Amino acid sequence: MTTKKLGRQTAALENPPSIAGNANVVGKKEGDGPLADSFDLIEQDDTFGEKSWEKAESAMQKLALASALDKAKQSVSALDYLFAGDLLNQCIGSGFAVRGQDAPFYGLYGACSTMAEGLSLASMLLDGGFGEWAGAMTSSHFCSAERQYRTPLEYGGQRTPTAQWTVTGSGCVILAREGDGPYVTHVTTGKIVDKGIKDANNMGAAMAPAAYATIQAHLQDTGRRPSYYDLIVTGDLGKLGREIVFDFFHKDGMDLNNLTDCGELIYDLEGQDVHCGGSGCGCSAVVLTGLLLNGMRTGRWKNILFCGTGALLSPTSTQQGESIPSICHAVAISTQK
Amino acid sequence: MTTKKLGRQTAALENPPSIAGNANVVGKKEGDGPLADSFDLIEQDDTFGEKSWEKAESAMQKLALASALDKAKQSVSALDYLFAGDLLNQCIGSGFAVRGQDAPFYGLYGACSTMAEGLSLASMLLDGGFGEWAGAMTSSHFCSAERQYRTPLEYGGQRTPTAQWTVTGSGCVILAREGDGPYVTHVTTGKIVDKGIKDANNMGAAMAPAAYATIQAHLQDTGRRPSYYDLIVTGDLGKLGREIVFDFFHKDGMDLNNLTDCGELIYDLEGQDVHCGGSGCGCSAVVLTGLLLNGMRTGRWKNILFCGTGALLSPTSTQQGESIPSICHAVAISTQK
Repeated sequence: MTTKKLGRQTAALENPPSIAGNANVVGKKEGDGPLADSFDLIEQDDTFGEKSWEKAESAMQKLALASALDKAKQSVSALDYLFAGDLLNQCIGSGFAVRGQDAPFYGLYGACSTMAEGLSLASMLLDGGFGEWAGAMTSSHFCSAERQYRTPLEYGGQRTPTAQWTVTGSGCVILAREGDGPYVTHVTTGKIVDKGIKDANNMGAAMAPAAYATIQAHLQDTGRRPSYYDLIVTGDLGKLGREIVFDFFHKDGMDLNNLTDCGELIYDLEGQDVHCGGSGCGCSAVVLTGLLLNGMRTGRWKNILFCGTGALLSPTSTQQGESIPSICHAVAISTQK
Repeated sequence: MTTKKLGRQTAALENPPSIAGNANVVGKKEGDGPLADSFDLIEQDDTFGEKSWEKAESAMQKLALASALDKAKQSVSALDYLFAGDLLNQCIGSGFAVRGQDAPFYGLYGACSTMAEGLSLASMLLDGGFGEWAGAMTSSHFCSAERQYRTPLEYGGQRTPTAQWTVTGSGCVILAREGDGPYVTHVTTGKIVDKGIKDANNMGAAMAPAAYATIQAHLQDTGRRPSYYDLIVTGDLGKLGREIVFDFFHKDGMDLNNLTDCGELIYDLEGQDVHCGGSGCGCSAVVLTGLLLNGMRTGRWKNILFCGTGALLSPTSTQQGESIPSICHAVAISTQK
């Protein structure tokens, strides 16, 4: 039996699955930002016609899934696997979105790394011969996240300079075993890294060491130089976290001038009062399914390393004085097999 | 390219991974029950030496992981993948247990189906050639679950007759690509089923239709009769939920006399005041990693269909008037490849 493992953390896919469809849905603030053109649906009403913010999240996922399937020219009943997760307690954004969908379902919890995690597992299952079609999706909503993690919306709490703004949005990727690409060629599975940061308003700094570790593992496992990639995209470290990752590599003698971050890309950091940028599972999901994959389809980029980062804390763990365990999963996407 | 899919939901593994190690840890109440002999560690102090119930959950997972690795004669750094999840908000039981472990990690949220979900994904990744060793673990704790889902422990709320008792325990399975078994031969991935049950104190009834649907799909996909299995084990429907599944099949003309449930097995339902039985991610995990796998190793059973059931609700979804989306993943385990 052969193994597809390169080094400790990376799998090289033998028959890289093709991204047959990608779609997203965002709220008003995201639609006012610099990536507006890359979103399939910008909804001015952040309730998405629902009676609660939690139900709005499920509504977004359903819209993103339907749109991604439509682009892939497939029905949901063609999916062999659908992976989804979100930030809400017990992942109800996903559970209620997938209820009523005719698809075998695996629920994930990877915080803001969920899109990369779902993409990793879906890609490996297809490459392993366990099916023909698979989906990965996630969402976040500013209002459901604020009230669950921080303070009631009505309270109007002040934000610290290192805080990030939870993206209202959902993204979905549909993968096919055969197709015209872009292709998922490598999966680097992250380990949990925790350097002792305890400030839940500085998650970029908490997650940066995990991103550094996974990117480093990917480069070592594959033998690739950072410059192999047109873009190395973390999501969502924000401005500060991305600068920390840059500094780590700089100390190693590598300048990652192709390093960028979904949390920095999605908003106008100066003009939209979002401090360090965007966050939330939806952030990297909508940047991947918009700007990045569309840019690959139009020939702007050929090779991207998409590095989803997640902070595995909860309000309870913070109240109990714990630091923030973080993780980063990296997925190499290429226009060539 | 060949496909390993049988029918719509089932994957037949070509090189069934071997369960190289299985271990569990439980609390006092579980140790007072009928399965005491099958537990590796029974701790009389439910804090497991920690300062909070949440930290106790992480401590249990760490103990179960270490013990399962020990039985598999492997170190954690041999693991290509470790899957874990739990019931706590943002799955902190798992996140903090895996922090500091040298293993690539995927976080899951499958509620009480988590052990079956982790076992499914770990098995497929090994069969697909993505590594040599993988682990799946989960936990639940009566005290952390009560205060998160129901009422403060000190409140001493009454329990309804259909209620189940959250198991304090953690189970871990270590899978190897090669070995002497028992082997994971088939994986049937569940779809979300929701028949409109809204009573969060009657989760057995809410989850029974999902268990029925997945077992039915498994039998149809594989062409097997229920009697192929020495045991068809759901986890954790409890007494009422298991009876409902029995009735569903009875109406189809099949009497599943080999149907049993981890929630019924783990406690003395009459003597331990647990109403319909056990529940929680830890319930099916400790029954699988104790009674069931040990029974296979000693020749008591040759073929088991392990059917993890999860209720994908949250306190918020219940407060918002929602019904309970449920899921069941089935894993066929055999002493023969």
